[in-house]
Amino acid sequence: MAAKTSKDIRNESRFMVLRTVYARHTVTRAQISTETGLSAATVTTLVGELVEEGVLREAGQISSQGGRPTATFQANPRRGTLLAVDVAETYVRVDLFDLSLARLGQERVELALGTQSIESIAELIGDAIGTLLERHPEVEGTVLGAGISLPGQVDPVRGVDVFAPNWGWHEVPLMEALERAVPVPVRIDNPLMALATGELWFGAGRRFRHFVAVNLGTGVGAGIILDGQLLRGPGNSAGEWGHTTLVWNGRACRCGRTGCVEAYVGVEGIRATLAEVDADHELLAVRHHRDFIERLMRAEVAGDAPAREALSRTGDYLAAGIGNLVNLLNPEHVSVLGWITRFAGYDLHDRVRARIAEECLPGPSSTVSIEFTEADGEGVSLGMAVLALEGFLEQVGLPSPSSPPAPAAAEDPGAGPRAGWAVPHRGTSSRAARR
Amino acid sequence: MAAKTSKDIRNESRFMVLRTVYARHTVTRAQISTETGLSAATVTTLVGELVEEGVLREAGQISSQGGRPTATFQANPRRGTLLAVDVAETYVRVDLFDLSLARLGQERVELALGTQSIESIAELIGDAIGTLLERHPEVEGTVLGAGISLPGQVDPVRGVDVFAPNWGWHEVPLMEALERAVPVPVRIDNPLMALATGELWFGAGRRFRHFVAVNLGTGVGAGIILDGQLLRGPGNSAGEWGHTTLVWNGRACRCGRTGCVEAYVGVEGIRATLAEVDADHELLAVRHHRDFIERLMRAEVAGDAPAREALSRTGDYLAAGIGNLVNLLNPEHVSVLGWITRFAGYDLHDRVRARIAEECLPGPSSTVSIEFTEADGEGVSLGMAVLALEGFLEQVGLPSPSSPPAPAAAEDPGAGPRAGWAVPHRGTSSRAARR
Ligand SMILES: [Zn+2]
Ligand SMILES: [Zn+2]
Repeated sequence: MAAKTSKDIRNESRFMVLRTVYARHTVTRAQISTETGLSAATVTTLVGELVEEGVLREAGQISSQGGRPTATFQANPRRGTLLAVDVAETYVRVDLFDLSLARLGQERVELALGTQSIESIAELIGDAIGTLLERHPEVEGTVLGAGISLPGQVDPVRGVDVFAPNWGWHEVPLMEALERAVPVPVRIDNPLMALATGELWFGAGRRFRHFVAVNLGTGVGAGIILDGQLLRGPGNSAGEWGHTTLVWNGRACRCGRTGCVEAYVGVEGIRATLAEVDADHELLAVRHHRDFIERLMRAEVAGDAPAREALSRTGDYLAAGIGNLVNLLNPEHVSVLGWITRFAGYDLHDRVRARIAEECLPGPSSTVSIEFTEADGEGVSLGMAVLALEGFLEQVGLPSPSSPPAPAAAEDPGAGPRAGWAVPHRGTSSRAARR
Repeated sequence: MAAKTSKDIRNESRFMVLRTVYARHTVTRAQISTETGLSAATVTTLVGELVEEGVLREAGQISSQGGRPTATFQANPRRGTLLAVDVAETYVRVDLFDLSLARLGQERVELALGTQSIESIAELIGDAIGTLLERHPEVEGTVLGAGISLPGQVDPVRGVDVFAPNWGWHEVPLMEALERAVPVPVRIDNPLMALATGELWFGAGRRFRHFVAVNLGTGVGAGIILDGQLLRGPGNSAGEWGHTTLVWNGRACRCGRTGCVEAYVGVEGIRATLAEVDADHELLAVRHHRDFIERLMRAEVAGDAPAREALSRTGDYLAAGIGNLVNLLNPEHVSVLGWITRFAGYDLHDRVRARIAEECLPGPSSTVSIEFTEADGEGVSLGMAVLALEGFLEQVGLPSPSSPPAPAAAEDPGAGPRAGWAVPHRGTSSRAARR
């Protein structure tokens, strides 16, 4: 039952400093201190370390009334670049960010529906990165790391995908194939943890310490943030709300159980509901997930009664599922995110809003806010860029508490930076050396 | 998004020291340091403060090989006594503990089924305390505080019972009636938080940092312990697992929703299942909850087929409900507690064990342990004694992080210790004065 060590506390504090800088873009040490509650001395030390590593830089000076000019700080976009890779069931997307997390470019490849091997996925990722970097010769040699989101139950510590039912993956080792295809340090995670990390750094995490980030997509899940930190659990699988039973003896779920939340509010769940309403509906033939949701919404707007009924029932299931999270966790806030909200957020929101009070107990219901974010689908990429940044900082001896531990070392841990997009590292850093 | 302050960290550290002392009975500073990960200097300071307040005392000296003799410490039973009150739907029980949490005596009053007012409950508590203390004249003037567990959604900060459906309570103010009847400082909470606190201090909390304490009784709930601390939520209502939907459109629950876990694995849920199996079963006439469960178990042992079937189905519901917790939270461990386990723990355990693997995803399933504790029903009392102890420590300026904030001040906050069982306080303590 070991307590937090002073090192844990230092890492937590560093994480708060970084989040403040990224959330506010340009800040003074005093502003960081006010916002985080950390002492001026601690902030000075932590900012100093980050400036020394080139992650932060002085942005200028501001003069306070009658006082000395005060330095402002910001993330240093010139320190290097990061790759964020979002592998979904239907596409692979690669984003290139600078260290201020501004996006420099993007490459997207559609995936055919059906089973994939990690080797074919890794090859696709490698090709997409190659194409993207060819279009951006100016960043050659600056890539500090890549964050790769893969579907299913990803265990970053062991470097395996424990369970990705859509592709029939069980205990699939990921790192060897990925490290062969991506010659920069790789961090892996699943879309839920990525999305929740993005929401923690740039979304609801700026206003709340206890909240849930619900992800609606092909798969569904709930990133749980408690006391300002993402709950991962010993196997990195916390948040599998999609595979909690909502309907006893209900529909078969792709996880092997019956009646899971995902079988009702995930894309295939919505399709099953539409089929229950109208077994001959023409949209049931649309296999592609985004096409299906997009066309379902258009049909609903055009007055298609079965489409409307299917969405209404989906809203009821979703309200009950969110009610379960609220009753169990008593969060301050629930953010509903994910690509489905881009298409169907408005309608689902109305239906959930109409039902949610009935689904929550009086106590938690009175203190929780629920927001649907019709975001542009950047959440996973931004989250994986943050995780790649955390990976880089850990490499140079400045870890964050919520970053997953590094995966087990690859076959040849002594090889150092590999050919390709070389890692610009500071071999002289005492912290890096100590590692 | 304020970070932890150094005061928060100090409180967390003090809490770890106390838990170590209570768990191990007699310890050296070095043992505390090893077990908590705190520095020797921090342990020396924190132990010193607790000795100064008389909460800990030197127990003796042990000699290490070739070294100087080392002091051992233990909780000081002579510092004072604590009252723990467990108000359930069917009884009120008062336990008297010394500060080492050894039980000195107990008084129990049965409650008639039906609605209660807080005034009648408070009077009963006051009478029971009076009877108990008359039997223990040796503790006169030593009672430091009382921890009172009340059913429903208790909000210790506002001092109200937000919702206790069995008694038709909505937003019932508790503190005035309780403080009139109990003239020592009062802490209130609900049985779930009490049980989870007991399990954190004396049960699974000694082995795990991330676990769930499932409480099975008339009501059911799940105390969630993350990173060694009890999750309360802004309204102290985290853990209402009993009111999460397990069966879509299922049985009406006393909370007003349908299909809640409690409507299937709580006592009335088990009764409803028995009625589904055999609508004319003679045990359906047994209204008293404990009698009903006890006789159901005896019937099952005697070969009563409907009783066996009802318990078997209950095990299936329970396995699915626990599976939901495991999939959502990825805990290291689940403890199943509560008075039902005393009667039915063995059978439910077998049935849950047979089903649980099917209900959990492969990842979390491989890392979680599940234990049924056939405890003697002391959990709530012990937990409320701990909360009363935390309340006393907070009063003298030594708070724990997981103790609920004190309720809003009573009408006459300046009155000081009241007549009756006077609070022996140390008016000279600088920490108390600073408060
Ligand atoms: Zn499932
Ligand atoms: Zn309920």
